Formats: sequence, structure tokens, C-alpha cells
Amino acid sequence: MRLKHVKGAREALEAHSHVATTKEEIIEQLSKYNKDNKPVRIEIGMGKGTFIIEMAQKYPEYHFIGIELFDSVLIHGVRRYDAMEQAPTNLTFARCDAIHLADVIQPHTLDTIYINFSDPWPKKRHTKRRLTAPQFLKMYEQLLIPNGHVIQKTDNVQLFEYSLMSFSQNDWTLEQLSLDLHHNALLNEENVRTEYEERFAKKGQSIYYLKSFKNKTSL
Amino acid sequence: MRLKHVKGAREALEAHSHVATTKEEIIEQLSKYNKDNKPVRIEIGMGKGTFIIEMAQKYPEYHFIGIELFDSVLIHGVRRYDAMEQAPTNLTFARCDAIHLADVIQPHTLDTIYINFSDPWPKKRHTKRRLTAPQFLKMYEQLLIPNGHVIQKTDNVQLFEYSLMSFSQNDWTLEQLSLDLHHNALLNEENVRTEYEERFAKKGQSIYYLKSFKNKTSL
Repeated sequence: MRLKHVKGAREALEAHSHVATTKEEIIEQLSKYNKDNKPVRIEIGMGKGTFIIEMAQKYPEYHFIGIELFDSVLIHGVRRYDAMEQAPTNLTFARCDAIHLADVIQPHTLDTIYINFSDPWPKKRHTKRRLTAPQFLKMYEQLLIPNGHVIQKTDNVQLFEYSLMSFSQNDWTLEQLSLDLHHNALLNEENVRTEYEERFAKKGQSIYYLKSFKNKTSL
Repeated sequence: MRLKHVKGAREALEAHSHVATTKEEIIEQLSKYNKDNKPVRIEIGMGKGTFIIEMAQKYPEYHFIGIELFDSVLIHGVRRYDAMEQAPTNLTFARCDAIHLADVIQPHTLDTIYINFSDPWPKKRHTKRRLTAPQFLKMYEQLLIPNGHVIQKTDNVQLFEYSLMSFSQNDWTLEQLSLDLHHNALLNEENVRTEYEERFAKKGQSIYYLKSFKNKTSL
């Protein structure tokens, strides 16, 4: 996503009661969430928040956290949330770099991790920054409950090829897969689209989708 | 592939010294192959044989067997082979149904199994006939040497999705993958095309490709 600086975003987010911007605030938020028995789902790189807001509305039986590194992006989602008449109470936001998630989230506490249209980092020397690189998968394994899932969507074929290889070579199993999500009757019906995805859909481009879990034992 | 009956095909194949048409002949052919140390590679459903003939020419350090169920298809490959000025001596043909391969091939003797543009069997009740259905993967595991590979190409997106899921859920690991083989610089360079693939390439349609091996131990 192209970044356009939003003046005052940082201050607004830090003052906002529904946004955790420090390690301590994120830990506090999660410990509140863990008090009831609702499973917790996060989106890494929530962008302007369309997906996570709609998910929170659609699934009140889960807690959701929208995670975003950039103030100037996160602020859009938060403003949209603030403007809602009935904002979902099972959704909060956290400003955090994905690589630091293991510092703020307790092991084996997440039900699902969503990765939607993440930066493909096409250059070979940036491979490690892709959100499905082996060190991220290792972290996700640590954060997820047993049989928890990573669900990825992307329009980028190279990123998707890379992800399929990375999950496979790190002993994750595919539970669902589509190479053309919007034409998959079963998966499309329950799919919640991101802003980005909506634009792509209009152009008729393929959206790639996978749902994967870590094998705990060898077959 | 649409089947057009070729008169006399059956008799011609059964009389041909380079074509094994009975269980005994296939076993005999393979035992000859196993006497030297060249690895053996087979193509299941060789069609008119373009791929396997070119592979045999390109890789004299391997033995190849083109396997095909239908006389009226196999005969085209055999005739093409017969018409060659310098037909490769490391290639033979076998008429055999894929589901019976384990009856004629010794366990752990194959280096690579190629599955090119196999019938997608799109109906749910025919799932088991797909060449990447679990019972086939089990058979391939038995036939392949440790770290032997299955290499699949198809233009059928549903078959490819099914295959990726099936390999993943049966504990095979992806070694290579392309969702657009002809635009993958590395893989396309060494790719040998089938007749069918050539036609598709001209229309600009995507060819899906995977190379997979069975995990012997849990990671």
C-alpha cells in the first residue's frame, strides 16, 4: 500500500482507548481478551481495516485484533471504526511490527492469523521480509493454539508460489486452497473482501487463497 | 484426450519388440533396466509420446518408460518412435492401467514419475480416479526410491488445486512449484513440452507445475 503521511495520526492513535500502541498496552489488551473464552483472531497488516471490521461484525463469538505498523494507514481504520453507529466491541487495534508479535502475544493463544495482500517483497534479498518466510511461520506456530490456522489471500502469484512452498517445506498442511477465490462457490460465499481485493475483483484478476495448519505429528 | 479407434493398433503393439503389453513383459523389461544402475523414470499416460521421446533423447543417463492404457493412443507414440532415424535405446513403452502399476513395478525402483495433463475427472464421484488421489500417492511412494519425485503438469486449475491439497495432506513436500510454468525463467528453460502443452502455450493459457517428494521423517 502506498503511504501518504497523515498529520496527527500518531498522536490520535496513542490517545485512542481502542488502540494499543505500546508493548504494555498490547499485552494488557490481550490479557483482557484471554479472560473470557472467546478465541482470538488477528490480521497482520490490516491496512484501512475493511476486512477486520466486517469480520468482527460477522463473528461476534470471536475477538479480533487489527495489527498495522504504519500510523498513517492504521488511522484510516480507526476513524472508520469511530464513525460507526454500532462499532463492534470485539475488535481492537494494535500498532506493531509483525516481527515483534511474539514479544507481545502469549504462546498458543491465537485461533487464526489472517494475512491479506501483504507486501510481496519481490527481490531475492528481501525474501525474509515476506510474511510467509520460514521465521514467520515458526513464530505463527508458537502463537497459534493447536490446530490454529494461517489464512492468506494475495493477488501476487510469485508471493503465493513462495508461500505454498514455504508452508509445505516447513511441515504445514493445506486445509483449503483456491487459485481463483472469487470463482470458488464454496469459499467465495463466506469470503470477506478487503478494499484492495474489491478493486482487483472488478478487474477480474485472480485472487489466491490458502488455509493452513501446522502438523503437530508426523503422519 | 479424445479417443479415435485405430484399426490394428492392438495387434501391432502386441507384436512390437519395444512395447510391453502383458504383466510378464513389463516385469521382464524392468528387470533388464534394473541390471545397470541407470535410474528409471516413467510417464503415466504418455499420450502420443512427444514428451517421453524427447526426454529419453535429452537424458541418456536415465531409462524411460512411457505408460499408456489405450492402444489407439499408444500406437501414435510407437509409430513416431519407429520412424525416428536414431530412436533412443533408453526408452520403451508399456500398455498398462495406472492402478495396476504396483503389480508390475518392484517397490522403490523408480526415480521419477511424470504426470502430464492427466484426466481431471471433474465430477466428485470420480475423485478417486484422479492420478493424484491419495491411493495413487500411496502407490507412488511405494514405487519411488527414497527422495524420488512426482512431477505434475496440468492446465486444469481444479485438478491442480486438488493435487496441491492431496500432496500436502498426505505428507509430501513441494520442491518446485509454478502457477505459470511458461513464464518461469528457470523452470521453463529445461521444460520439455507435451503436444497438448504446446497447443495451450499458443493460446497463452497458464500451465501449472509441481515437483514433490514424500517426507520420510517428520521435521
